[in-house]
Amino acid sequence: MTLKEDYDLLLEKSKKAIIYQMIQAQLGWDFETYMPSKGGQQRSMQFATLAKDVHKLLTDPEIGELLDRIKSDPEYTSLSETQQRNLYLINRDYERQTKIPSELVEKIAKHQVIAIETWKKAKAAKDYEMFKPELKKALDLQKKRAHYLNPDKHPYDVLLDIYEPNMTSAMITVLFNQLKEGLVPLIKKIQSASNQPDTSFLTRTCSIPIQEKLATDLSNVVHYDLDRGRIDTTEHPFTTGYYQDVRITTHYYENEFDNSLFSTMHEAGHAIYEQNLDEEFIYQPLGQAASLGLHESQSRFFENIIGRSSEFWEFYMPKFKEITGEIFADIDNKTFLHAINHVKPSKIRVTADEVTYSLHVIIRFEIERDLSEGKITVDELPKIWNQKYKEYLGVDIEDDSEGVMQDTHWAAGLFGYFPTYALGNIYNAHILHVIRKEMPNYDNLVRNGDIKPILAWLTKNVHKPASLYDPADLMQRITGEPVNTQYFIDYCTQKYSQLYGF
Amino acid sequence: MTLKEDYDLLLEKSKKAIIYQMIQAQLGWDFETYMPSKGGQQRSMQFATLAKDVHKLLTDPEIGELLDRIKSDPEYTSLSETQQRNLYLINRDYERQTKIPSELVEKIAKHQVIAIETWKKAKAAKDYEMFKPELKKALDLQKKRAHYLNPDKHPYDVLLDIYEPNMTSAMITVLFNQLKEGLVPLIKKIQSASNQPDTSFLTRTCSIPIQEKLATDLSNVVHYDLDRGRIDTTEHPFTTGYYQDVRITTHYYENEFDNSLFSTMHEAGHAIYEQNLDEEFIYQPLGQAASLGLHESQSRFFENIIGRSSEFWEFYMPKFKEITGEIFADIDNKTFLHAINHVKPSKIRVTADEVTYSLHVIIRFEIERDLSEGKITVDELPKIWNQKYKEYLGVDIEDDSEGVMQDTHWAAGLFGYFPTYALGNIYNAHILHVIRKEMPNYDNLVRNGDIKPILAWLTKNVHKPASLYDPADLMQRITGEPVNTQYFIDYCTQKYSQLYGF
Repeated sequence: MTLKEDYDLLLEKSKKAIIYQMIQAQLGWDFETYMPSKGGQQRSMQFATLAKDVHKLLTDPEIGELLDRIKSDPEYTSLSETQQRNLYLINRDYERQTKIPSELVEKIAKHQVIAIETWKKAKAAKDYEMFKPELKKALDLQKKRAHYLNPDKHPYDVLLDIYEPNMTSAMITVLFNQLKEGLVPLIKKIQSASNQPDTSFLTRTCSIPIQEKLATDLSNVVHYDLDRGRIDTTEHPFTTGYYQDVRITTHYYENEFDNSLFSTMHEAGHAIYEQNLDEEFIYQPLGQAASLGLHESQSRFFENIIGRSSEFWEFYMPKFKEITGEIFADIDNKTFLHAINHVKPSKIRVTADEVTYSLHVIIRFEIERDLSEGKITVDELPKIWNQKYKEYLGVDIEDDSEGVMQDTHWAAGLFGYFPTYALGNIYNAHILHVIRKEMPNYDNLVRNGDIKPILAWLTKNVHKPASLYDPADLMQRITGEPVNTQYFIDYCTQKYSQLYGF
Repeated sequence: MTLKEDYDLLLEKSKKAIIYQMIQAQLGWDFETYMPSKGGQQRSMQFATLAKDVHKLLTDPEIGELLDRIKSDPEYTSLSETQQRNLYLINRDYERQTKIPSELVEKIAKHQVIAIETWKKAKAAKDYEMFKPELKKALDLQKKRAHYLNPDKHPYDVLLDIYEPNMTSAMITVLFNQLKEGLVPLIKKIQSASNQPDTSFLTRTCSIPIQEKLATDLSNVVHYDLDRGRIDTTEHPFTTGYYQDVRITTHYYENEFDNSLFSTMHEAGHAIYEQNLDEEFIYQPLGQAASLGLHESQSRFFENIIGRSSEFWEFYMPKFKEITGEIFADIDNKTFLHAINHVKPSKIRVTADEVTYSLHVIIRFEIERDLSEGKITVDELPKIWNQKYKEYLGVDIEDDSEGVMQDTHWAAGLFGYFPTYALGNIYNAHILHVIRKEMPNYDNLVRNGDIKPILAWLTKNVHKPASLYDPADLMQRITGEPVNTQYFIDYCTQKYSQLYGF
């Protein structure tokens, strides 16, 4: 076979796995949205069958042979940049899949179910001791996994690399320390400011049909294409899909209209990324987001950078009032804006505001890092967790269900995943800085609700490159410098000093 | 390997194919209900990939080897009746599948998506010329399929056999001619009767939430289990699923409440069949309905035999009036019953009454038969269609969207499928005749809304046997005689002479 034939065959194999993964995602969406309550057993048969077959597709020994042959082909350098990148990504995934013994894969899958069930019970019972043995085991299994993937690298770096390619614990430590140094004093200033927002109107009753109308209208405003997507409801909002079919979910609470409004903007940001990947890369390894951190930067760009800006509400307030009728007729822009940007240190990450959110993530990162380096033990976790919440956020944790057991991630074996949430903030403030430089009329565009040129910029620079580059390289190309936390600190300082008047 | 090991391995292979077919059905449901308008291309990639792989599973040469080994095993007769039937069904499907090249399977799957999309557009534009090339291609692909399946049999018989095992065009011609002979004069009598119903109240505005409430309530009344199902909306109602997850669709029109009411009863009847197949047969070839004709008998049993009977409305009218409030407060049972049993030759099959319905089906059957025999061409279709509607039903077709393009079936490549709709009528009148003999209190049960014993009878005799027998054999076991159209003609004559007073 010629090099071209080898390459095409390899891409064909990869395409098939991608299509099966799309099918898995679609069944997962249905499982979360519309599946009848007693349909679980049949669905789990479908999931198990697909999981086994996808694993088989991804570990097909012929992939290894094709990769070896292509790499040693004298014509290799005649391949284009995108072709070489596809090969790099296929190789990376193939190694990830084949290096771990299937017994360990099975052990992890089985333990995940047990650990999540135990976590649910322990959380309900506020009993960390019940969860502890499973957490220990989950961590142990992930360390083993990391060892198989790369015995020469620090296990935490190996796990991080899965979610944020080529990012290391050392790099994140530097970034997060800078963030902490910038944000902790800022939060103190905000808390001691005399100008605190009136948030009482946020709990006014806003019917679900009105909230649905807002969600649809806002999706249109930010150009989340609903001909290639849709909005449904689930307890935990999420985005799933690819190119022409990218669906989001939200949840509607009658007395928390802002909850669905911003979760819609957040998930729309994720969906916009998927909808605007380069069409040329569809069904190829290249046709995926660069990293979870980049993904989170886009969701938070639409949720916060645009969605919670004064400029956006200058534009959107009349429409908002038109849709909501009399409910918020007496609320002026300034009151509204301050309320939706209320900074308040709290115990729960998922409902945290834009400024304190990163500190929640930093706490989890520091604990994961120190756990994996053996500096702390699972036994000490609640104590250390509570100390850090007190130290960074000034918050007292009363029981472990709202402390160390609040997130499902660790029970699910997701170590190295949390940092991507805060990297999203860092990336998007940096990206905003560049946009403002390159598009001096950015603020006016937002003020006019003219999101299209901004989306075009993001598409060209962030979405379209898809997985052509590792996230740090992509950020370097977009911004012309290494990732820099200062932009996020500056963005927060400027925005919140204005809101809180200091 | 022992006989038992061979059998188990064969069933394991069959199970995997069944699970993949469940996944196909689920993606099909999503395609019809919630898929974004531009998601078709990606979905067609998924369909094509799955179709290819299902074909591969079903044509696995090891199945042929296992079947051969089992059939020639001296212990073969030690297998149970159900085991032998599973082997028969696996063998039948294996032969059906191995005879068709996988390229053709893939072509058909891909073309189906395109043809349905084109049909939708052409129907909206009332433009048969837009649809014609795709229809030609669909028919051509099905003829090719039939030729591969059995080059010695008439292609139309080959296609018929897929939906109604062992039924032939000649047998159907006999049954349908009897039906025509019985029904055409009856329809004339009905039309010339002086006692015509007042149907004006049927168009009173009935809001969609009220209609949704009716749909849910009626599902509960007939024991369509919504914990193992759900009701959504599509233009063309359908049922899909299996055992624990059987979904139906309907459509709501504010000024045609009876449309959704009876379409819900109809689809609920289909769903009840699937929900009550013998649990022991799940994931086995046996775990499926005996035929589409039997399936249709169950949907029409709940829609017509129960749903349009005077006894049922004696029971349900108070609840109906409770749910619909003041809308129909002035309508008495007799007026209501006559209106929902209004016999009126019309253009559209799916909304046709119980008596004229079969003539719609007979028209399609005759066209399909003549098309496949080359007696007519796709170019002539609208002309022939309109002629037959004039001749059999006295109806003038004004445009092709309400004529030849009214059904999705031909776009979906379903030739040989239509006759099963009228077979359903024939079967269920025959079944009703037996129920009344075996359960003399049948009418009183319906009068009391006590559907459970009737459902138990149907489950025991019709649903539970699943695919243990071919449809004609199952009917023989249920009724003790060969399928007989006279019961349907008698049922119609008795019911409608009473309603129309002749």
